[in-house]
Amino acid sequence: MARILTTRRLFFALVVIASFWIANLPASGDSTDQAVPDTMMAADEVADPVEPIQELTEDSHGATEETASEHGENEATGGHGSSEVSDVLLGLIIILLAAKIGGDVVERFKQPAVLGELIIGMVIGNLVLVGIDVFEPFKHSLTLEVLAEIGVIILLFQVGLESSIKEMMKVGLASFMVAVFGVVAPFFLGWGVAAWFLPEESIYVHIFIGATLTATSVGITARVLRDIGKIKTKEAKIILGAAVIDDIMGLVILAVVAGIITAASGGGELSSGGIFWIVFKAVAFVVGALVIGNFLAPKILKVGSKMHVQGILLSIALMICFTLAFLAGMIGLAPIVGAFAAGLILDKVHYKVFTERGDHGISELIEPIAIFLVPIFFVRMGMMVQLETFGQMDILFFAGVLTIIAILSKQACSLAIFDKNINRIAIGLGMIPRGEVGLIFAGIGAKLMYDGHPVISASTFSAVVIMVIVTTLVTPPFLKLSMLKTEKEPPPKEVTGI
Amino acid sequence: MARILTTRRLFFALVVIASFWIANLPASGDSTDQAVPDTMMAADEVADPVEPIQELTEDSHGATEETASEHGENEATGGHGSSEVSDVLLGLIIILLAAKIGGDVVERFKQPAVLGELIIGMVIGNLVLVGIDVFEPFKHSLTLEVLAEIGVIILLFQVGLESSIKEMMKVGLASFMVAVFGVVAPFFLGWGVAAWFLPEESIYVHIFIGATLTATSVGITARVLRDIGKIKTKEAKIILGAAVIDDIMGLVILAVVAGIITAASGGGELSSGGIFWIVFKAVAFVVGALVIGNFLAPKILKVGSKMHVQGILLSIALMICFTLAFLAGMIGLAPIVGAFAAGLILDKVHYKVFTERGDHGISELIEPIAIFLVPIFFVRMGMMVQLETFGQMDILFFAGVLTIIAILSKQACSLAIFDKNINRIAIGLGMIPRGEVGLIFAGIGAKLMYDGHPVISASTFSAVVIMVIVTTLVTPPFLKLSMLKTEKEPPPKEVTGI
Repeated sequence: MARILTTRRLFFALVVIASFWIANLPASGDSTDQAVPDTMMAADEVADPVEPIQELTEDSHGATEETASEHGENEATGGHGSSEVSDVLLGLIIILLAAKIGGDVVERFKQPAVLGELIIGMVIGNLVLVGIDVFEPFKHSLTLEVLAEIGVIILLFQVGLESSIKEMMKVGLASFMVAVFGVVAPFFLGWGVAAWFLPEESIYVHIFIGATLTATSVGITARVLRDIGKIKTKEAKIILGAAVIDDIMGLVILAVVAGIITAASGGGELSSGGIFWIVFKAVAFVVGALVIGNFLAPKILKVGSKMHVQGILLSIALMICFTLAFLAGMIGLAPIVGAFAAGLILDKVHYKVFTERGDHGISELIEPIAIFLVPIFFVRMGMMVQLETFGQMDILFFAGVLTIIAILSKQACSLAIFDKNINRIAIGLGMIPRGEVGLIFAGIGAKLMYDGHPVISASTFSAVVIMVIVTTLVTPPFLKLSMLKTEKEPPPKEVTGI
Repeated sequence: MARILTTRRLFFALVVIASFWIANLPASGDSTDQAVPDTMMAADEVADPVEPIQELTEDSHGATEETASEHGENEATGGHGSSEVSDVLLGLIIILLAAKIGGDVVERFKQPAVLGELIIGMVIGNLVLVGIDVFEPFKHSLTLEVLAEIGVIILLFQVGLESSIKEMMKVGLASFMVAVFGVVAPFFLGWGVAAWFLPEESIYVHIFIGATLTATSVGITARVLRDIGKIKTKEAKIILGAAVIDDIMGLVILAVVAGIITAASGGGELSSGGIFWIVFKAVAFVVGALVIGNFLAPKILKVGSKMHVQGILLSIALMICFTLAFLAGMIGLAPIVGAFAAGLILDKVHYKVFTERGDHGISELIEPIAIFLVPIFFVRMGMMVQLETFGQMDILFFAGVLTIIAILSKQACSLAIFDKNINRIAIGLGMIPRGEVGLIFAGIGAKLMYDGHPVISASTFSAVVIMVIVTTLVTPPFLKLSMLKTEKEPPPKEVTGI
């Protein structure tokens, strides 16, 4: 009871901040709505029926411009972008507070903190349904979106740091087999279900929905495994390796399907050379990053160790992480694939010269940045969920079937494991979440036009969003249950603070 | 020689990244130029003659949108904002690399790293003059601007952490006197010089230029004092205290002057009650933040120590920092004032319960975030400098006089110190830099209209920018010389890595 009271006190603080903000920016909610179409039309040329992803533009900037000029004296704080700074600061305060409250509450029920972050994000993101629209601007802040992306990049970098190429090689074949099973089954099952439910749509729509079901969102699983202290188990390595590989496979399928549709709507066809090129680039990137990175990283670190400035080890680590994330994006892969590769490359032996003279290791240096940025991604992902789509029955039904297919089809992964000592169920469960990758796929489908219509219609988009939410929400408790059930003793002792 | 070669190797890496980027985004330079007016006109209603600050809009987003659709396959990386993520990642890579190279080079000449960051920022920011426009988009990225702002907020928070309210009280009177001298002298001298050089302009313009010279940019001085290991000296405390106080005074003057001009251009007058209200709010914020924060912080930390989630100490520290920075912005002060107050409040004794159970202290936890974000602010500030304004003789002359006045008038600060044991010269020197505060003032003046013209014209703006650059550049070497000259031994041993 006393515990609940203290949490409630923090809630009061949130309310105080929020009401202060309402009092100071009375017109903000309205002016956001007003500013969206203006700014968006200027920036985007294509009008778009899908809102959830589309809205993430720079409109909040335009909105705060207006608000600032309505309240002349706020201009004294600075030039351009300073009202954006205020908005981002408020967003960060609310997200950090929400993350810690949500995390604390679910940890009391022995669930991983990430689930609490998602749920509290869903709550504050949907308060608009009961008329509270103070949190709306934070959904549309481009800066918070980018910070969230950097957060998930940092998370995957951390996960990569906790493993090494050598260790990954040991589970390489298992991961590869798991990934293949985990891509083939959802792809064809998803395709089949889409053909059954949406017979009036073209084959491209069916294929695209199949592709949307393929890629595992490694972020959620990685967080769960880290939260319960199981990130170094063999199961964790297989799942993470498989998630990275199926991410690559999924993105290759997506690139190929999108290429075929683009060619088909233009009356042409994607050449087999084009398909080969897409596949080649993806594989070459991952292999190249690991081989070249593994060769270059020690050399870069050696140069760095001779430099006279402070913070050089962390700066180099961040540069390598961001460079591979950036290159992955350039090549058409998700930036997190590059960040994970960067983490694999940076082995402790490579920067021994730093730790031997008393510096902290990279994992320790990156942790505070992760504490700051990672929750932004998960709270924000919860905030983007639109609970009102849950009210339409036909969408709900299609979504339900899609979700069941998404969950069951990934259980095919456990068939790829022959080693009896490995928890096969946990591997199937760990591959369930589609998270941000599913949303990204659906968003691309919503923009892709075939025969004058978007490949992913607004209602199909909602169904995919629901599938993503459910697969993301069910994974943490079940994975935790499965990973811990073999143990006799209670879960590892709780760590508070860092 | 070998040393130069290794640095050169890092430069090669930069060139490789840059050329990769050029190869992939051939139309980026042009499309940026195209996108600026479109997006700006939609967002801003006031047409504006001043470019340097005005350009910091969301145009880079619009530009990358275009680029992405030209390179269809990049779309496979994600939905909206993912090209912004790529841009920000590349910007971060370049800024981190530049900061470390610049810092390393100047540290070899025994200069503080911040000077190297500024200079290398000026270099890459002005490569456009020799036809290299690859770095242009990073000047216009709203996200990088916000990250830079968060960086300077974190820096001031760190500086505040290194001191405490009790210690500040000891130098309180000295700081206050220094601040008063350091505001009064530049304000009236600046006003006089403006009246002498710009007789055709109204008295409001003269007053405004005087106000632009008042506020010290504590960021530069704080960095220099940290870099040379002198942040805990009595001189440092007086300077930092005075810089905060004169920031508040400067912002009050600015708010009052802006209020008078707005009232005058509307035909009315700012009431004395209005002036009182502005002054009252500023003083009330600082006193209130310290008193209430000092009372609340231990209680919040106590609640946090009972929570079950990881990273709670750092999260609470960041929340307090961001909350006070946000509130300072709301009240019309610079957010850094709030961040500094937050650092002062968070005394080690308040979070003993965390450190006693083995957690790291707040200073140690915040350091990696500072290593990541602080250089963004200084490199970016260098990048915003437009070297071409140095070519116009009349602007240069006015700028020269303004700069001399800015430097000399702050030496009045040393007159406020009667204690013979304190290095008075260092205090006068430490108060010289105007940095971002001067730029912010000038930017506000450029938007403020009187009699149909902006109060700060385009050429006056250039002169102010030059003044800001020179005061910022001369401070580090002179301050370092003055602070270290009393010592017999060489500067403290170099710290590499952290």
